[in-house]
Amino acid sequence: MEEKFVYSFYEGSKEQKQLLGGKGANLAEMKKIGLPVSSGFTITTQACDIYYKNNKSHPIEVINQINENLAKLEEEMGKKLGDESDPLLVSVRSGAAVSMPGMMDTVLNLGLNDNSVIGLATKTNNERFALDAYRRFIQMFGDVVMEVSHSKFEEILENKKKERNVATDVELNSQDLKEVIESYKKVIRDTKGYDFPQNPREQLQMAIDAVFNSWNNERAIFYRKLNNIKGLLGTAVNVQAMVFGNMGNTSGTGVCFTRNPSNGENKFYGEFLINAQGEDVVAGIRTPQSIEELKEIMPEIYNELVDIREKLENHYKDMQDIEFTIQEGKLYILQTRNGKRTGNAAVNIAIDLLEEGKISEEEAILRIDPNSLNQLLHKQINENKAINANIIAKGLPASPGAAVGKIVFNAMDAKSASESGEKVILVRNETSPEDIIGMDASQGILTARGGMTSHAAVVARGMGKCCVAGCSELNIDEETKTITVKNIVLKEGDFITLNGTTGAVYNCELELEEPTLSGNFEKLMKIADKYRRLQIRTNADTPKDAQTALNFGAQGIGLCRTEHMFFGKERIKAVREMILSKTKEQREIALKKVLPFQKSDFKGIYSLMLEKPVTIRLLDPPLHEFLPNEESEIEDLAKSLNIAIEEIRINMEKLEEVNPMMGHRGCRLGITYPEITEMQIRAIMEAAIEVSIEKNINIVPEIMVPLIGNVNELTNQKNIIIETINKVFEEKSKTIDYKIGTMIETPRAALCADKIVKEADFFSFGTNDLTQMTLGFSRDDVGKFLGYYLDKNIIEEDPFESLDTEGPGQLVEMAVIKSRNEKPDFKLGICGEHGGNPKSIDFCEKVGLNYVSCSPFRVPIARLAAAQSTIKNNK
Amino acid sequence: MEEKFVYSFYEGSKEQKQLLGGKGANLAEMKKIGLPVSSGFTITTQACDIYYKNNKSHPIEVINQINENLAKLEEEMGKKLGDESDPLLVSVRSGAAVSMPGMMDTVLNLGLNDNSVIGLATKTNNERFALDAYRRFIQMFGDVVMEVSHSKFEEILENKKKERNVATDVELNSQDLKEVIESYKKVIRDTKGYDFPQNPREQLQMAIDAVFNSWNNERAIFYRKLNNIKGLLGTAVNVQAMVFGNMGNTSGTGVCFTRNPSNGENKFYGEFLINAQGEDVVAGIRTPQSIEELKEIMPEIYNELVDIREKLENHYKDMQDIEFTIQEGKLYILQTRNGKRTGNAAVNIAIDLLEEGKISEEEAILRIDPNSLNQLLHKQINENKAINANIIAKGLPASPGAAVGKIVFNAMDAKSASESGEKVILVRNETSPEDIIGMDASQGILTARGGMTSHAAVVARGMGKCCVAGCSELNIDEETKTITVKNIVLKEGDFITLNGTTGAVYNCELELEEPTLSGNFEKLMKIADKYRRLQIRTNADTPKDAQTALNFGAQGIGLCRTEHMFFGKERIKAVREMILSKTKEQREIALKKVLPFQKSDFKGIYSLMLEKPVTIRLLDPPLHEFLPNEESEIEDLAKSLNIAIEEIRINMEKLEEVNPMMGHRGCRLGITYPEITEMQIRAIMEAAIEVSIEKNINIVPEIMVPLIGNVNELTNQKNIIIETINKVFEEKSKTIDYKIGTMIETPRAALCADKIVKEADFFSFGTNDLTQMTLGFSRDDVGKFLGYYLDKNIIEEDPFESLDTEGPGQLVEMAVIKSRNEKPDFKLGICGEHGGNPKSIDFCEKVGLNYVSCSPFRVPIARLAAAQSTIKNNK
Repeated sequence: MEEKFVYSFYEGSKEQKQLLGGKGANLAEMKKIGLPVSSGFTITTQACDIYYKNNKSHPIEVINQINENLAKLEEEMGKKLGDESDPLLVSVRSGAAVSMPGMMDTVLNLGLNDNSVIGLATKTNNERFALDAYRRFIQMFGDVVMEVSHSKFEEILENKKKERNVATDVELNSQDLKEVIESYKKVIRDTKGYDFPQNPREQLQMAIDAVFNSWNNERAIFYRKLNNIKGLLGTAVNVQAMVFGNMGNTSGTGVCFTRNPSNGENKFYGEFLINAQGEDVVAGIRTPQSIEELKEIMPEIYNELVDIREKLENHYKDMQDIEFTIQEGKLYILQTRNGKRTGNAAVNIAIDLLEEGKISEEEAILRIDPNSLNQLLHKQINENKAINANIIAKGLPASPGAAVGKIVFNAMDAKSASESGEKVILVRNETSPEDIIGMDASQGILTARGGMTSHAAVVARGMGKCCVAGCSELNIDEETKTITVKNIVLKEGDFITLNGTTGAVYNCELELEEPTLSGNFEKLMKIADKYRRLQIRTNADTPKDAQTALNFGAQGIGLCRTEHMFFGKERIKAVREMILSKTKEQREIALKKVLPFQKSDFKGIYSLMLEKPVTIRLLDPPLHEFLPNEESEIEDLAKSLNIAIEEIRINMEKLEEVNPMMGHRGCRLGITYPEITEMQIRAIMEAAIEVSIEKNINIVPEIMVPLIGNVNELTNQKNIIIETINKVFEEKSKTIDYKIGTMIETPRAALCADKIVKEADFFSFGTNDLTQMTLGFSRDDVGKFLGYYLDKNIIEEDPFESLDTEGPGQLVEMAVIKSRNEKPDFKLGICGEHGGNPKSIDFCEKVGLNYVSCSPFRVPIARLAAAQSTIKNNK
Repeated sequence: MEEKFVYSFYEGSKEQKQLLGGKGANLAEMKKIGLPVSSGFTITTQACDIYYKNNKSHPIEVINQINENLAKLEEEMGKKLGDESDPLLVSVRSGAAVSMPGMMDTVLNLGLNDNSVIGLATKTNNERFALDAYRRFIQMFGDVVMEVSHSKFEEILENKKKERNVATDVELNSQDLKEVIESYKKVIRDTKGYDFPQNPREQLQMAIDAVFNSWNNERAIFYRKLNNIKGLLGTAVNVQAMVFGNMGNTSGTGVCFTRNPSNGENKFYGEFLINAQGEDVVAGIRTPQSIEELKEIMPEIYNELVDIREKLENHYKDMQDIEFTIQEGKLYILQTRNGKRTGNAAVNIAIDLLEEGKISEEEAILRIDPNSLNQLLHKQINENKAINANIIAKGLPASPGAAVGKIVFNAMDAKSASESGEKVILVRNETSPEDIIGMDASQGILTARGGMTSHAAVVARGMGKCCVAGCSELNIDEETKTITVKNIVLKEGDFITLNGTTGAVYNCELELEEPTLSGNFEKLMKIADKYRRLQIRTNADTPKDAQTALNFGAQGIGLCRTEHMFFGKERIKAVREMILSKTKEQREIALKKVLPFQKSDFKGIYSLMLEKPVTIRLLDPPLHEFLPNEESEIEDLAKSLNIAIEEIRINMEKLEEVNPMMGHRGCRLGITYPEITEMQIRAIMEAAIEVSIEKNINIVPEIMVPLIGNVNELTNQKNIIIETINKVFEEKSKTIDYKIGTMIETPRAALCADKIVKEADFFSFGTNDLTQMTLGFSRDDVGKFLGYYLDKNIIEEDPFESLDTEGPGQLVEMAVIKSRNEKPDFKLGICGEHGGNPKSIDFCEKVGLNYVSCSPFRVPIARLAAAQSTIKNNK
């Protein structure tokens, strides 16, 4: 049988997203459940794939199947494409399996030509409408398909308006439009050297190809990269009989959400424009009316829409993003899809749907992208401190959170400022897909035009970035780079603060504060906790970090780095004295000065964590990291240690390393300078015993030896550790339990895990270093080629973000098997930054670790991701 | 049954070396085959092990068994230890399973005390002999067992000689000796606070313990480390009835070898002293007579010795090192063992024994330590160029080869000079075990006293170091650090050259030249080639290196590094221009300048290697390695490139890396700058095609992509390579075969070998980098802790010398299995420096690699080691 490349809307279903794209699959689904959907057909993503593989040409089957489906559509509609009396017009739209709003191309009103435009005029009895449709079609087709610059068409239109001395397009009459059409056709001929195609079937084929080509335009590629969209075949193309929202005041078009996509509130939400085509809403050129107002203007249509809202949400069991058009009093649904939403909305919607009985707990958990929780963990404006700050304007709260930064006026400025470390706010009259790189580089986005569904708003919400849109009080001059509002003038580089949750804009740099878990977010976390198997710990070096993590539900500390404690102003002196010591005795004296600092740090952490597990890692970085860099610091050090500057310099040179990452660090320090280990163990144990007594609790310190490669290293350190612990026990006349474990962060440690496990109470995978060594990627230097590698698809993801499961992941898996072979219940965790990455957490679940440890702000993300993993892996 | 800790010489055999030590096992063996061996017993190495484990005390069984064996010995000899009329005297000697000459302690004449000395005098009718024996015993026991400084005894003896106005010990009479004995006893009492022990059983126990203790003295530990002696339990102790070589002119003692240990000549070889004890020969204080002279002096003894020589060699089927003593006309054999020999002698002896039909080819191959061949590959003096050089003295050719260096006069000076990069010759009147570190640090050793079996000679041969011994013309003043010979005065720091093969000493810095394969060495290599399975290639970057390797029998080049070719004076300019290019176009122009250089390098190598395989590795090191370091070079570069110095500096800073080992290097360069790969491929292929045509041969280039971690990297480079090759084929109108492979040197590459193999024609394991990354040991920085690790036995061997089979070795094995699973006949080799290390070669044989590649001078070592591996693994 011939392969099927084209599906009529009567054939598909919502399950076929991969093949038909999201839009195509849902159009078919809506047809099936009886919603008012204009007919059409979908050319599959597979046809797109073949188109690219065939060097941008179609096999004959594809062409034939398009013809067959077009014929059927013509039959159903009783109209023919290009017909001189009653022409069928179609839209040609992209639609990939994953929504990429605005990234690919669309052509409307296709099928018009010099003859059929007359038929349309006659049939609709509206010459002006027909001519305007033709004008729009040539402009869109010329721009999108024929690649004639948009501005050339705009210029012709503007000139005509000037000539006729009118302000808006609507004021141009039929004759004007006829002249514009002729000028459009001429500019195409002049630019391209050939004519605008009059053959409708040729128009259709060119439009289909243009949509396929747009799959690989620059911004679509960037969008996929930004959103980590991989593994798709291409885009599908939907050819659909046109309906018109611009046929007068009984027509219109709109976009609505079944719930509020910004906060999730269960309230119908949307916008529409009377007498307009769909792109007018999305482009943000006219500020639309709220959906509530439709109730007044067209109560029947409004009620029909409310019914459809309920029908669709019940059918899809998720919040829907619906596009509709009203043509002369009749409602058509153009699209439905699961609506994009903020993290906050995602949480609220999932919990609401759960409480409404529409979805199960597991579904509620799986519904939310863990990374989107990041937005709930964004900093917010402290409203109390902002009470006296000046709100210069208020726009739409288009994407929640808060942002502080310097004003920039275009995407390139945003990008370059951000690259040089500046925090910026991108301020635009309206944004367009070309701005996406600049939006990504900014803290937040502020626009003067466009509604809650404008480009800026949609993209910002997708990025989880704060956005205030449609702030029409602002007078933005992008040329002179100034904003004028009331009597205030703001220039490029001035600080502003945005509140994306309220829409407020402040002309100052406000302080932002940490978010908290509460309400539905807290409910979600509790449900997730019921399902997840992995424990979630945090990487915290200070009581402050530990407190944040506890607030977010951390069950312990998986990595407490002791070296950060060395950098305090007083202590760094003693540390440097220790490093510059010439004898063990001198070193011991210096270490005695460091001891009380370390001990009080540990007491602080234990007092907070109480009986929750705390894994403390012994000194890890090479000693030269503690030495001063500045000339003046070196002089100070020389003075305070009473030695010659020259001597310090010689010592510093001696400590320098060619590849410090693989040098004298980790347990290699504790082995060559056992007195360092002794001091640290003393600090840990004295702190643990004292807090245990003070609080009348049982603290069980977990001591972690870093950078082990050989079991003998661990044995060496273990002997020193136990000896010191026994001394402390004797001095304190008290014993407590403790655990001694090790990081698995060199490939050798993973390879020899069966030997190392015999000396260890636990392992913690240090996947940062393990990634560096397994790949031979110095994290500090990888910038020289990693971007290139990602661009060229040599590697799929930044291996420092998402664990490379084939490389270091394979070693982790090996070490898990080898260690559990020896000790079946052996405790295993991960403390690399991958511990907060959902995909990596899924890997940790699969290989059976006991816990992941991540930065405090990723704890909720890890809790959710872990629950999702357990649910998915139990299926 | 009670465990057996003490064996009589009637009980053991030569197979029991591990238990009885080499000396004990061979004494028993000689007893068994009827040689004149004085009776005694051996306390096992196991007893030594238990002694240490028991905190330096013996279980009661050991004491009991010593008592039983002592009683039996007394019975056999008809004498009793400490007897007042006819005392039994014994020697107490160390003896581990592996010979460690001079490293551990010995006590002679044990059993004498104030009473038994009278018995000995009466019985031997030689009061002076008895008193002298007692005097020697107290001195030796005081020094070795009671740790009273040797010099205190020497002082007493010297004073007595002065007082009596005599020059030698022999001139002291009985009365003098009695007084010396009293003074000796007093100095012991004064130093230790207690008396020299009069109880012979107590003396025996103390001596046994002292020998056990000497197992862990500093120089024994150093010797074991130097010779990589591991896994032994401890030393055995041999207690043997004394025989005396110092009972007058019918007595004597000597050391002989069944063949010449210096060159292997099948000629009886040795030295003796009349009227002396064994230690007099070894210590080198008196220069002994050649064994030939014994024929004149004691013809019967000589003939008996010649018989024993034959008997022992036939029995042991190897060259023997024999110690003997003649007591009043009767011969006793004190020891036999496989004689230490030079590499040259080892080869000659093995081939001679083979040709004499005493051993098989396999045995001949297994007989030789591959590392000892190093000595045959030592540089030698070019005798033609040395013809006018001044020979200031001639000593014994104690250890062959040649050495050039500056004179130093003690071990410490040798060590510190060598550490600061100086090449030195250690010049001593005689060496002692304390000098061993200094000998190791020197290029060669020159002594004024001592024979071919003196400490200096024996140790130097063991180390494979050039040595001229017994050069008695030299007047060495170690105090003022001068050598006077004839009318020449040499000072510390002056250059001398030694010829260890002839004994010549030159007072100048002579040029040394490369050795060649010939004679028995060549025979041995040919036999080895018959047995080995592994191919031996070489790492060579230049035609000169390639020629050396070919001379040594290399079968191809396993690693030709292209970067070394970049450093020529002309070419480095173009290379730097390439690095500093801002655009691809500029870079291509610069690369065009490099191309002819690279091409002519490759033509040179292909012209020499002809159809032998040559694996060329594409550019590997980070680009900053090619940039200038010197201020003046930077200025020159700026001038020649016509750019600002500042610009060069900025570029250099940009190229700097935190961890260059894991930075922008290897295939990462070829991927980000494909034009570099293109240039290199063009150079390789044009060269290969041109030489193929010129010589009418078929060259099959092997192109190796470095530092692959992900198969996509290889695919990327392969595409560029093939595209360039096809271009060259077209331009040249000729095609040739070629192979594209990759280094496996990142852990990830090994882990993903199953994927990478699909794109590769061969793998070469780059075990240097693989070791660095698997262990996280930066080779440039490891010096900061590696020594400590080796000292503390945290790691057994330098992992850059001998492949760490548990770490990187495990990855190699994994990659072998994974790649051969996909392609069963896949070609695998190793090109890290481990390719020349016998132990690592054995590993490569076991895991089934096709070839090893090593530096040219290690090719013969690899050929032998590979043959040994095949033989051993087939057993």
